[in-house]
Amino acid sequence: MTLPQPVMLYDTARAPNPRRVRIFLAEKGVSLPTTEIDIMAGQHFDKAYRGKVGSHNVPALELDDGTFLTETVAICRYLEAIYPDNNLLGDGPLEQSLVEMWSRRIETHLMMPIAFVARHGIAGMQALEREQCPAWSEHNVPRVAAGLRWFEKCLGDKSFIAGDRFTLADITAFCTLDFMRLIRTPIPEENLRTHAWRARCKARGTIVS
Amino acid sequence: MTLPQPVMLYDTARAPNPRRVRIFLAEKGVSLPTTEIDIMAGQHFDKAYRGKVGSHNVPALELDDGTFLTETVAICRYLEAIYPDNNLLGDGPLEQSLVEMWSRRIETHLMMPIAFVARHGIAGMQALEREQCPAWSEHNVPRVAAGLRWFEKCLGDKSFIAGDRFTLADITAFCTLDFMRLIRTPIPEENLRTHAWRARCKARGTIVS
Repeated sequence: MTLPQPVMLYDTARAPNPRRVRIFLAEKGVSLPTTEIDIMAGQHFDKAYRGKVGSHNVPALELDDGTFLTETVAICRYLEAIYPDNNLLGDGPLEQSLVEMWSRRIETHLMMPIAFVARHGIAGMQALEREQCPAWSEHNVPRVAAGLRWFEKCLGDKSFIAGDRFTLADITAFCTLDFMRLIRTPIPEENLRTHAWRARCKARGTIVS
Repeated sequence: MTLPQPVMLYDTARAPNPRRVRIFLAEKGVSLPTTEIDIMAGQHFDKAYRGKVGSHNVPALELDDGTFLTETVAICRYLEAIYPDNNLLGDGPLEQSLVEMWSRRIETHLMMPIAFVARHGIAGMQALEREQCPAWSEHNVPRVAAGLRWFEKCLGDKSFIAGDRFTLADITAFCTLDFMRLIRTPIPEENLRTHAWRARCKARGTIVS
């Protein structure tokens, strides 16, 4: 079976989801042709982009049969099928479900609260949200702190968040925690496991910006 | 390879995510031993539940090797591996990524706005959210309306939302739209494609409550 091949990645700097795909590709040792979309200028809302891609989301992956894939994990799942070496989504059904479970937990407990604080609380991010809800930004500040405590606890004695090896769930967590720069929230110094895990991730040499 | 087998499904009535798993199993023709968790009484926050499952989330799937899976789609992905007949997550990498893409889009454009309106706007749902943010409930009311228009448009001439056959993405959408009963929002009469799609889903005889 020949699968449609990726021909173009629509990407944008500084946002955590496109970065998840960049790190995923770096782990695979794969480089794709890339088109940069300026989301702060609202380029992803342009009719040209939406008409072609079928959604305003970035990242998007164009295939040589004309298909466009959006949604970060759906894109990574397709890339894993095309470039199966250096497995990142789980080897076999049980690990696959555990990686998905951990990645989704991190999206819920950390990525979403951080995004809500930023997107509804930082004036410059109105371009992304169109209408902001400052009360929701404030509501999520303690949830970010709770999410950081939760992540530290979940690491336990594991080397990586889904178990003993690096997976998409670590990519999700790494990009999420780095995104806290935007809301000027550091990882608390006492979260020793989180800092050690972060150093293990960085040591791989694939954590591109 | 023998995979760990499901031994118990932790379930709860009326919430959309556990229902997604129930419909998924009905499509597979599979019935599992079930334990009902009373989320309105906060039973999922009890130490007994969290200590066992590793999270407060419902649904949860217990396997015979002692693993607990949470996160609805991760559970469905494991069930698809155990019961591969009547494929619902996509046959081959491209369809798998498209089903995931559509199911996630529906989660973002419809499930989340509806859940936010309900969980932050209905007094009786404070048990789930602990602290509510009424401004966020109000903020999401127009997003629900926009999501309904978006879904009607996305259906286009397709029989089902990810293409020409029923998949997890339809299960996600069906449970999401039914959940609007809670916020007393009907599907607009003029959304003819949505109503016809809903009738096609119901005609399968697997849309359990």
